[in-house]
Order: sequence, then C-alpha cells, then structure tokens
Amino acid sequence: MKKYTGINDLDSIADTIQEAIKLKENPYQFEKLGQRKTLVMVFFNASLRTRLSTEKAAKNLGMQVTVLHVSDAWELEFEEGTIMNLNTSEHVKEAAQVISQYADVIAVRAFPKLENKEQDESEFVMNSFIKYATVPIVNMESATAHPLQALTDAITIEELKTKKKPKVVLSWAPHPKALPHAVANSFVHMMQELDVDFSITHPEGYELNPAITKNTSINHNQEEALQDADFVYTKNWSNYKAYGKVTSQDPKWMITKEKLGKAKFMHCLPVRRNVVVADAVLDSDRSLVIHQTNNRTFAAQIVLKKLLENSAS
Amino acid sequence: MKKYTGINDLDSIADTIQEAIKLKENPYQFEKLGQRKTLVMVFFNASLRTRLSTEKAAKNLGMQVTVLHVSDAWELEFEEGTIMNLNTSEHVKEAAQVISQYADVIAVRAFPKLENKEQDESEFVMNSFIKYATVPIVNMESATAHPLQALTDAITIEELKTKKKPKVVLSWAPHPKALPHAVANSFVHMMQELDVDFSITHPEGYELNPAITKNTSINHNQEEALQDADFVYTKNWSNYKAYGKVTSQDPKWMITKEKLGKAKFMHCLPVRRNVVVADAVLDSDRSLVIHQTNNRTFAAQIVLKKLLENSAS
Amino acid sequence: MKKYTGINDLDSIADTIQEAIKLKENPYQFEKLGQRKTLVMVFFNASLRTRLSTEKAAKNLGMQVTVLHVSDAWELEFEEGTIMNLNTSEHVKEAAQVISQYADVIAVRAFPKLENKEQDESEFVMNSFIKYATVPIVNMESATAHPLQALTDAITIEELKTKKKPKVVLSWAPHPKALPHAVANSFVHMMQELDVDFSITHPEGYELNPAITKNTSINHNQEEALQDADFVYTKNWSNYKAYGKVTSQDPKWMITKEKLGKAKFMHCLPVRRNVVVADAVLDSDRSLVIHQTNNRTFAAQIVLKKLLENSAS
Repeated sequence: MKKYTGINDLDSIADTIQEAIKLKENPYQFEKLGQRKTLVMVFFNASLRTRLSTEKAAKNLGMQVTVLHVSDAWELEFEEGTIMNLNTSEHVKEAAQVISQYADVIAVRAFPKLENKEQDESEFVMNSFIKYATVPIVNMESATAHPLQALTDAITIEELKTKKKPKVVLSWAPHPKALPHAVANSFVHMMQELDVDFSITHPEGYELNPAITKNTSINHNQEEALQDADFVYTKNWSNYKAYGKVTSQDPKWMITKEKLGKAKFMHCLPVRRNVVVADAVLDSDRSLVIHQTNNRTFAAQIVLKKLLENSAS
Repeated sequence: MKKYTGINDLDSIADTIQEAIKLKENPYQFEKLGQRKTLVMVFFNASLRTRLSTEKAAKNLGMQVTVLHVSDAWELEFEEGTIMNLNTSEHVKEAAQVISQYADVIAVRAFPKLENKEQDESEFVMNSFIKYATVPIVNMESATAHPLQALTDAITIEELKTKKKPKVVLSWAPHPKALPHAVANSFVHMMQELDVDFSITHPEGYELNPAITKNTSINHNQEEALQDADFVYTKNWSNYKAYGKVTSQDPKWMITKEKLGKAKFMHCLPVRRNVVVADAVLDSDRSLVIHQTNNRTFAAQIVLKKLLENSAS
Repeated sequence: MKKYTGINDLDSIADTIQEAIKLKENPYQFEKLGQRKTLVMVFFNASLRTRLSTEKAAKNLGMQVTVLHVSDAWELEFEEGTIMNLNTSEHVKEAAQVISQYADVIAVRAFPKLENKEQDESEFVMNSFIKYATVPIVNMESATAHPLQALTDAITIEELKTKKKPKVVLSWAPHPKALPHAVANSFVHMMQELDVDFSITHPEGYELNPAITKNTSINHNQEEALQDADFVYTKNWSNYKAYGKVTSQDPKWMITKEKLGKAKFMHCLPVRRNVVVADAVLDSDRSLVIHQTNNRTFAAQIVLKKLLENSAS
C-alpha cells in the first residue's frame, strides 16, 4: 500500500479489519517498525479524535510524530502557473516536497469550504499532496472522504455484530451548521464493500452524491428504514444538490431511544446532543461512540503499519 | 492516588515533599515507569512554566506527551441536558471520554472567567473532566486551585528553610489586570498543612474566600506582617467580594528590598516587574523564583509517578 | 561551541561543512548523544522548514523536542527597568531563565518588524535570550541573521560544486511584501568565508547593510552579474536605506531559465512562483531548492551536536 486516501487503497478490506482487531490485542508488538521514522500531521482544520488517535497509533509503532497546524506556517497556493503576488506565500508544490524531506509519512486534514462543489470535489488539497509529496499520504479527512473513520466503523461493526449479515442504516440527522459529506460518503462506500444489509434514510432532497450512493437503497421514511436495524449510524450532512446549504433542520430526524429500538447507535463525533441524538441514547449502553473512538487508534495503526512495511520493502 | 486536582489528593504531603526532593537528585531513575504511557495536556489557557515543566516531568518518566490546545479542537459544552444547537460542537461528556481512549493521564488547565463567582467555584471544567474521564486527572490550574504550584512551593520552602518552623507570609501585590485566586488559594491551603508560622497580608477588602483562609492570621498592615519573615510569597489576586474587580492598584504594596529584609522572595511567575516586585528584589539572590520554576518539574514528576504507580497496581 | 547565533560561532566553517556532509550519510550514529536532553524551540513567527528540520535534527540525535509558540504563553517584555503595568505579562529576564530550567538547548525565531532599523539591528530578542538563558541558544532566524540557512547553503554548494572556486551570485528578486534582510545577510557573510567567486546584484538603492557587504562586488546590471555563474542564489529583501519599504517590484529582476543559463538555482523558500522565479526554473533540474531543504536537517544537526558535545565536556 502506497497511500491511504480512500478505502480503495486497501488491498483487502476484510483482511485489514481482521489485522486491526489483532493489533488491538497487542498494540506494541510492532514498536520497532517505526523507529527512526517520522509522521508529520498537517492540519488545515480543527481536530480532536483524529489528532490524538493518529498520533497514538504512530507512537505505538515507535514513530516520531510532528503536528503542524498550517496556520503556524505559510499560506499555501494550489493553482498551477499562477503569479503569486497576492496573499499566498508558498506553493503546495514546494510545501509537499519540503515536508517529504522530514517525514516518512504525511497525514493531511483539509475540509471543504462547501461553497463550490466542483472545487471541493476536485480534492485539490489532498491531490496536490499526493502529486507532489515523495512519501505516502494519509487522508485525515478531506473534502469528500474520511477513510480512517470508515475503517474504524467497519472494525467496530465486525467486532460487535451478532449475526453474519447485520442490518446497517445510515440515518441523516439535523444540525444547525453546514457540515461536509466526507464521513457519510466514506461510510457508504465502506458498507457497500462489506457483507451487510445496508440502506440510507434522509429527508427528500438530501441525497448524497449519486456517484457514491450508486444503487444503495434509500428510504425517506426514517421509521420504516430503522425497522429491525442492528446498527444505526447517524450523521448530519449539508444539502448536496443545493450545495452546502442547510435546507432542513427538522427535529423529527433526531435519533431517540424509541426510534433506535434494539439497534446499536454509531456516530463519528463530535455530536450535538439533543439535536442529532437524544441524551438517553448517548448515555445508554446502546451507544458505540466511545468504542468507535477507541478503534480510531487501531484503524490508523494498521494503515501506518502497512505504509511503513511497504516503504521498508 | 487516583487524581491530583487538589493537595488533599496526596496521601501524605510531608512524604511527597521528601520524595520529590529525592527525585530531583536522580530524575531519570523511573524512566521505565511511563513507557507506553501517554500524558495528554489539555490547555484552555496560556501556559509557559506549567506546559514545559509538566511535559519534562512526564518525559523524565518515559511517558509520551501530547499537547492539545482546545482552540485547535472543538468548542466544548458543559451544561447537562442542553440542546446543542448554538456554538458548542462537542459535549465534555464525550470529550473527556474520548481523550481517555488515548491517554493514561489527562492534565487540564482551565482558568476562571472571573465574572460569576458561583460558576467559577463550581469548577465545572475540572469537575467535568474528573467525572467523565476514565483516567486520572491532573489540575494544571483551575478556577480556584493550582495544586502543582503549591506543591512546588512546599518543596522549595522545605529545601531552603533554615529553621524548623519558618515564618511565611503571603503578601498581596498590585496588578493592572484582574487575576484569579487559584495560586493564593492553593498556597494558603498548603501552608496550613505545613509546620510553618503562616500569615496573610493584604489591603482591607481583599480577603480571599474565608472557607479557604479559615483561621489563618490576616494583617492589613504589610510592614508589620512582613516583620522577621523568612519567606515572603507575593501574589496579586482580584477582589473576591467585589468578585473579579480590581479595586486597588496601590503601589505601596509592591515588594521592595527594604520591605523584604532578610526574607526570601517567592512568586509563581509570570511577574510584573516594578509593579508586583521591584527589580532590585528579583535580580538579587533573595529571589527564589527561578528555584521555584525548576522545582515545578519535580512537583509534576512526583505526582505523575504516583498516578502511574497507582494505575499499574 | 557555546551558542549558534551567527556563523562566526563556528570554530571552523570548512570543517563544519565536511562534518555535516558525513553526518548526512549516517544521521543516526549519534542518537545516544541527545538522550535525556531537551530542545525547546521558541517561535515568535511562522515556520515550516525551520520547524520541521530542526525538530528532526534534534530527534536524530536522540533529543526530546518541545515546540512553544510564544502566542500560547505570555506576552514578553524586553525593556530593562520598565514598570510593567501595560500589556506585557512576563519579562524576558524571567522567561529565558525559566525555559532554561526545562531545556538543554533553546532555539529562537524572532523576525524584525522592519519599522525601526536601530531597534531591529539591536537584535534585542535574540540578545536577551543569549544574555539571560543559562543554556546554549540557536538562532532560527533573527532580525538580521539566519545562520542555519547560511550553513545549509554552504553545505549545498560544497556538495554540488563542479569546480574548485565556483562563481556564486546573490540576485535580488521582486516581491509584493516587505521582507527581512536576514537570509541575504547571512548568505553574504557565509560566501565571504568560503573559497568562491562571489558577487551581488540588485537594483540601485537596494544595497544591503554595507557593514555586512563590506567589499563584496555589487553590480546593478543583473544580466552582466549572472554571466557564467555556477550558483544563482535569489532572494528578495526590502529596502535597507528606506528601511523596510518596498521601493521596487520590477518584474525584470525575476529569475528565468534564460537568465539562469547553466547555473544552479538556489532559494531558501518559501518562494513566490512567477514573481521571484519562473515556474520553468523551479520545475527544472537546475533548481536546488529541495536539496537545500533536505540539507537544513544536517545543518541543524551538526550545530546541535556541537552544542551537546560542548555541554557534555
């Protein structure tokens, strides 16, 4: 594996999940692998879980970790051929090569602005790093994908499922702010790859990118959709058609204990309590959010392990 | 010891002081203890000494250290049961549990706003972390207490006292800005526990919380109070009754060489030169401020050592 | 060596360059040297290369590294004898001594404000740290000097020169913002110490400090100056006489492939593409900027090695 910017970069998703579960039992068994290796984590945006879990994963492997907030460095230019006489001080062509001189792996977080669909979908930040860096790139959430979260969620479902083919529902939730589609996109993609009974429920008009949902079943009736679910993954996203707009904050879509039934509740966090999901769900043993949080370490660790092994060979 | 959020958390203050002094002679003797353990330091506010000394203490014990400025993560909600449809993105219930997945010890700095006495005294930030985290919490200065500083000061006095029961005076100083009571509170508390002749001097109306000062002698005549002192601990605090107000900046309360006499000068730093204390004091060998600064490492290290030992057993 | 704040601090520049080149072949051979030693990096300004390369250099030597952005600590006072009743909370006298309690080496970056020549040339930030710190200081770019960059550039020229005495030209470039003189100053100083045929070219009126350029040849005709050059080092600086002003942005001074001829192109980065230098140069194999970037690690590492060896002896 030469990078991890989407779940397709994994040779085998099923094998990777099993390897991560084994790693969790003995997280320090490969702590020689990363010696004298450096992970540079580049943040264009806020982070709690991703920052801490990826840093811990790297250190579990014996790596050195450097955290760089882009705001502490120089404003980056991404346009090719531009005359840089305005605000940007450094081109990503240099920046990505420069960081590569000091890093064995570079992890990048770069959210979309949600103003220009085409620009966001071009993934110009992540793709510039992939293009110009000379070391492997890990996506810590880009404009359209959050593959470390999706791998975490797959590990969690695999660990906790009680039937061979569980029913998994992705349920849209209301939110006061316009949020990206990255988590939902990568979760959909991951569920399409697993042996699960997967469907999506959201208000009419809140369709995700059809190139991602493909032929996944979509139901606009949440109650029907959640019927007999084993795992309910809840997440807000802003409108994709009316790009980046909040066209509904309908509180009826919040997840309650009644709606959840016997299902387990999943969310990537941070979560708005009593907007996205009721306290009674989050504070119950039906909630897997802390279990997921814990698995973030092992998702990142198995990815870093594969990248280190590949570069060693 | 399961946490260190106040000096009462120490089983024995006297023993801890002695252990810290021994640790200082050989700071690396326990560097296996913290291997594969992580300290996450969470800062809601500025820090120089606390940041550097606590980080060094942890690394002396072989720990990994991660520094998290909350401003680089998500705005936190502390209210129970609230509908989170405004500015806060993540509830401390989740945040504290989340950080616990990646940390063996969490250290938190959270100053008071000095606007609402009841709210500050509720210690809602520190207490939320204590309540929801699943690993030990260390207080790196909260709304009302700074127990790492108080332990530092006790170590310093124990090292440098020249009589069995030295006279120690806490002397209020003027300051242009409204400052918290945390350092003064914890120093008062610590002195009450030690075998010292302790008193406080401040202008009338600048009484600290009487639940903390209890029956400690208070003298509004600074000159009288400082007579024959061995250690003069100087610190500004804002008015406690007229909560958070600066009702005096009387320059007569600044510490000068004349006032100090043969006493040693102590301060937690940062200190406003020629406002809180004259240059001639700080630049003389009567000043212990750098000695105190150095001891911050060993106060933090003995605390972390006890927390690691407890969690190992 | 007791500090590295200017290239004069090196006992022998020629030997240091050779030692750095040897270190590059085996960067981990001294990884015991820095064990239990801490580098604290203090940033008053933005950084990408300096941050990452100096951190990597220290870790290659086995050191612990702590990065401190001054904006996360307290606003510093530099005036002697001042009454600190305004915005500054901590005097550099304390701050430098305080950081010394937790560091074995302190590295400082502090750019000039370019408003007051005398103040900038006093190097009050760097000199305060030198004066009050009790451990060695490394200059990570000060108001008037960038000696880690100059050492990097000397290493690069030594590695890649194809004749005994190459022709090296420092060529001023246009830039929309007022930039410091530090890189140019230290490069000039370094070239004066090496066995190279060195000259400077810039528009009339853009003379650097004559106390630094001394009798170095200056040519206002860029085309003439670049004739038969082996290395062209390009850099903008703001006007020194009309201090800190941008009095020319003449695009004719941009480096193009035609102007460069057979010379190698050097720049410290970050660089404004198509303002300072044409894409065609940066994207060609004539550009050494990434090679220079890589050498930053070994310049920092040889400096830290010498400081650690000195303090160990």
